[in-house]
Amino acid sequence: MAKTSPGRFFEDYHPGLILDHAVPRTVTEGERALYHALYPARHALQSSDDFARACGLPRSPLDDLAAFHIVFGKTVPDVSINAVANLGYAEGRWLRPVYPGDTLRARSEVIGVKQNSNGRTGIVWVRSRGENQRGETVMEYVRWVMVRKRDAASPAPAPVVPDLRDALSPSDLVVPEGLNFTNYDFALAGERHRWGDYEVGERIDHVDGVTIEEAEHMMATRLWQNTAKVHFDATQREDGKRLIYGGHVMSLARALSFNGLANAQLVVGLNGGTHANPCFAGETVRAWSEVIDRAEMHAPGVGALRLRLVATTGGEPFVRKNQDGKFSPNVLLDLDYWALIPR
Amino acid sequence: MAKTSPGRFFEDYHPGLILDHAVPRTVTEGERALYHALYPARHALQSSDDFARACGLPRSPLDDLAAFHIVFGKTVPDVSINAVANLGYAEGRWLRPVYPGDTLRARSEVIGVKQNSNGRTGIVWVRSRGENQRGETVMEYVRWVMVRKRDAASPAPAPVVPDLRDALSPSDLVVPEGLNFTNYDFALAGERHRWGDYEVGERIDHVDGVTIEEAEHMMATRLWQNTAKVHFDATQREDGKRLIYGGHVMSLARALSFNGLANAQLVVGLNGGTHANPCFAGETVRAWSEVIDRAEMHAPGVGALRLRLVATTGGEPFVRKNQDGKFSPNVLLDLDYWALIPR
Amino acid sequence: MAKTSPGRFFEDYHPGLILDHAVPRTVTEGERALYHALYPARHALQSSDDFARACGLPRSPLDDLAAFHIVFGKTVPDVSINAVANLGYAEGRWLRPVYPGDTLRARSEVIGVKQNSNGRTGIVWVRSRGENQRGETVMEYVRWVMVRKRDAASPAPAPVVPDLRDALSPSDLVVPEGLNFTNYDFALAGERHRWGDYEVGERIDHVDGVTIEEAEHMMATRLWQNTAKVHFDATQREDGKRLIYGGHVMSLARALSFNGLANAQLVVGLNGGTHANPCFAGETVRAWSEVIDRAEMHAPGVGALRLRLVATTGGEPFVRKNQDGKFSPNVLLDLDYWALIPR
Repeated sequence: MAKTSPGRFFEDYHPGLILDHAVPRTVTEGERALYHALYPARHALQSSDDFARACGLPRSPLDDLAAFHIVFGKTVPDVSINAVANLGYAEGRWLRPVYPGDTLRARSEVIGVKQNSNGRTGIVWVRSRGENQRGETVMEYVRWVMVRKRDAASPAPAPVVPDLRDALSPSDLVVPEGLNFTNYDFALAGERHRWGDYEVGERIDHVDGVTIEEAEHMMATRLWQNTAKVHFDATQREDGKRLIYGGHVMSLARALSFNGLANAQLVVGLNGGTHANPCFAGETVRAWSEVIDRAEMHAPGVGALRLRLVATTGGEPFVRKNQDGKFSPNVLLDLDYWALIPR
Repeated sequence: MAKTSPGRFFEDYHPGLILDHAVPRTVTEGERALYHALYPARHALQSSDDFARACGLPRSPLDDLAAFHIVFGKTVPDVSINAVANLGYAEGRWLRPVYPGDTLRARSEVIGVKQNSNGRTGIVWVRSRGENQRGETVMEYVRWVMVRKRDAASPAPAPVVPDLRDALSPSDLVVPEGLNFTNYDFALAGERHRWGDYEVGERIDHVDGVTIEEAEHMMATRLWQNTAKVHFDATQREDGKRLIYGGHVMSLARALSFNGLANAQLVVGLNGGTHANPCFAGETVRAWSEVIDRAEMHAPGVGALRLRLVATTGGEPFVRKNQDGKFSPNVLLDLDYWALIPR
Repeated sequence: MAKTSPGRFFEDYHPGLILDHAVPRTVTEGERALYHALYPARHALQSSDDFARACGLPRSPLDDLAAFHIVFGKTVPDVSINAVANLGYAEGRWLRPVYPGDTLRARSEVIGVKQNSNGRTGIVWVRSRGENQRGETVMEYVRWVMVRKRDAASPAPAPVVPDLRDALSPSDLVVPEGLNFTNYDFALAGERHRWGDYEVGERIDHVDGVTIEEAEHMMATRLWQNTAKVHFDATQREDGKRLIYGGHVMSLARALSFNGLANAQLVVGLNGGTHANPCFAGETVRAWSEVIDRAEMHAPGVGALRLRLVATTGGEPFVRKNQDGKFSPNVLLDLDYWALIPR
């Protein structure tokens, strides 16, 4: 009996299929420290227990993207081990902060399948959920990937394309229980800009850059138990390069956005995201943001900003797409998310 | 008075000598997180407190090899700082899991010495033990190393060669107190294969590969306070390469073996091991296993597999030695160990 | 409104100005483990809870230099983001150990300003203090930096040059409450040399070397939330090199000094320090020490050594300056500090 699994192919997915992902993970202060070593993360809420308590939380939570990465990592063996491309995200919501000591597991439901016209691949949509040790959902999101067929001759399934929303509305967003920004200490947080200081359409160049090393992106990706070969094995690609996990670029860009968005403390919604170009070690990653929308939240002192976060390898800031409508070759990531910020 | 020590030479060892190794070490959730960042470790018992409790343990223990590395690291200044080669291991047993908060120290007893015919080096056998803060032995093993003589003219000691067993028998293995695999969750652990599914002689190619970086092997080796120069100082060898700590390859291969041996949760016996060829940064490490023996254990639902774990830098899987009986140049490590797995 | 800050220029400092630095930081066992992974740190007091308790402390504290780095990192955005050079340190004192769970913040007072004769830069002196969650000062030090003027035409301020002491006297040093070295276990600590074994003028070559990797110095520097561009962004310098944070060399040299100064357990005073030459990845760092002074302390079994710690990239040991009185090009760091050691 073969002991290793070749992973699922397109034929193995059908709408309604539930995937219980393996290997639950207890996250601790160790993962928290590593997040600060691997990314230039400085948001005060994820840095200081005292600051978090002053904002009504029991202690400093893990970075919101860490919860995303853990859920993502667990889905890899069942969802994307044979994926050709990670095509998009939608309807991502953070429902509860993750604290040191929590144990996370993940489940996904297949919500759509559609064979491509070439007959060799198809698109699979899954809604993934991360749960803590009390069975509470901590985050959820939809992603869709292009997956190889096992056999090009196998019949195409009836296409099911889920009806996904372009963006979450503010009423979909969940504010962590107890969060209160009325006594927020702007000096301690690092910037004085509050919700009302940001205008729709405003763009911010986050100034700093980080040159990526192989050891760093591999440690980050392993930390979330994401073991997709292309991130670790330099013999997988003809050019001998290791493809950097797209989530590493997400965390790097989000951390860089501190410089100009230091008070956008919590990520609560993921409207969409595209990994526009592959990222490799040696590249210097920069970031800029654009304010897309604003909303007041039903929590004391809490507002929300809808932000576009663009990670690049340089070039002119604020350039996202070329005249032909395609992403500029400098753009690595185009992320559309909601963050909570003091009003 | 010279303040730095040149380390011990062959003349400084005699059977019965007790070496109390320096610098006790408290291990925490930080070391646990780093282990997951440095190796693609996914065994559920070392990943989730809840999974560990469902198996009868108080919480998730540190990886068994971490305990080995800590003991090994502590012995380096007294045993192998002037060693020419690390020749072998035998009679290794894990007697108690190590949990975050435990403080480990190490002691060794010299159990054999034998001068080599060249008169310039000799072989020293030591039995090393790691103890926790309650004085309980957490693991023990024998290793033998080739050590330089201080003075080639000094007389050879009477040779004492310990009588070491080729392999531990199942009755030598210690099952952690409370371990119970009767309600083991195979889905959550990642694979469905149980003890009875593995046949003696069966071989498993673990598929994945990891290209090693200098920063990673140095961080891993430092974490265990192993400060042997060749691992850190690129000026020590004429080729400017840093020799990777053999234990780094052990942990890497063991983590890679998850793919096919996900349920072989705990390492409890080390029958023997050879670092067949040196490993350097830039190499891509792969692994395969062979089932050597099987045993039922006196614990609910618990079986044991004796496994050969071979780490390579590629080449044909399952090739270990050449026709001349020597290790293939692709083989880095040949490890013979016992692991516990649900029956 | 611009959302990112260009940082302060020379004109923005005046004596008496108080700078409340942003982003408090809770340090945990995760930071402790990373310190051991990033540096060859082996001092027993920072390695073992049991050893620390046997010396009268409640548990093993973080490395003293970690507290220095955290305070330093917090001051960067307000003090040195536009600095041309980090010129010196003085009057540094560690007042209380930092334990996992502590939350640190930092404040600085400007204590001197002096415009340079070129009219384009000036020197700023600040006294920085790190405080824990109880408002207790854990450490303090003076540093001075050369800062660009925003406008070369702006008038020079009245020069104020603080009167700084060449060295702390033993009576300035603070012994952590409860510290007691009367039952100190020299075997467990790794060396037998006590306070009385060190003579003023004695020099120790610490033997070992570490070749530095980009990933390691960036992770270390990020861990302290020091985000000065030159350490992370390879496009900042014309030669494409990332300048290594001077504090990384301090921690590396201090860790290397274990070999010969294993019992110099706690750093309690920083008399002065010079980053003599820039350090880059690929260089192999070595260290030597010289005993400058000795003092008995008013605590059971506790003595103090004043030590010069010199980090180099090789060359002859014990060479610090050339015949012209300038630092040898091999010297990276010249640090003058007080450490506590058993009498």
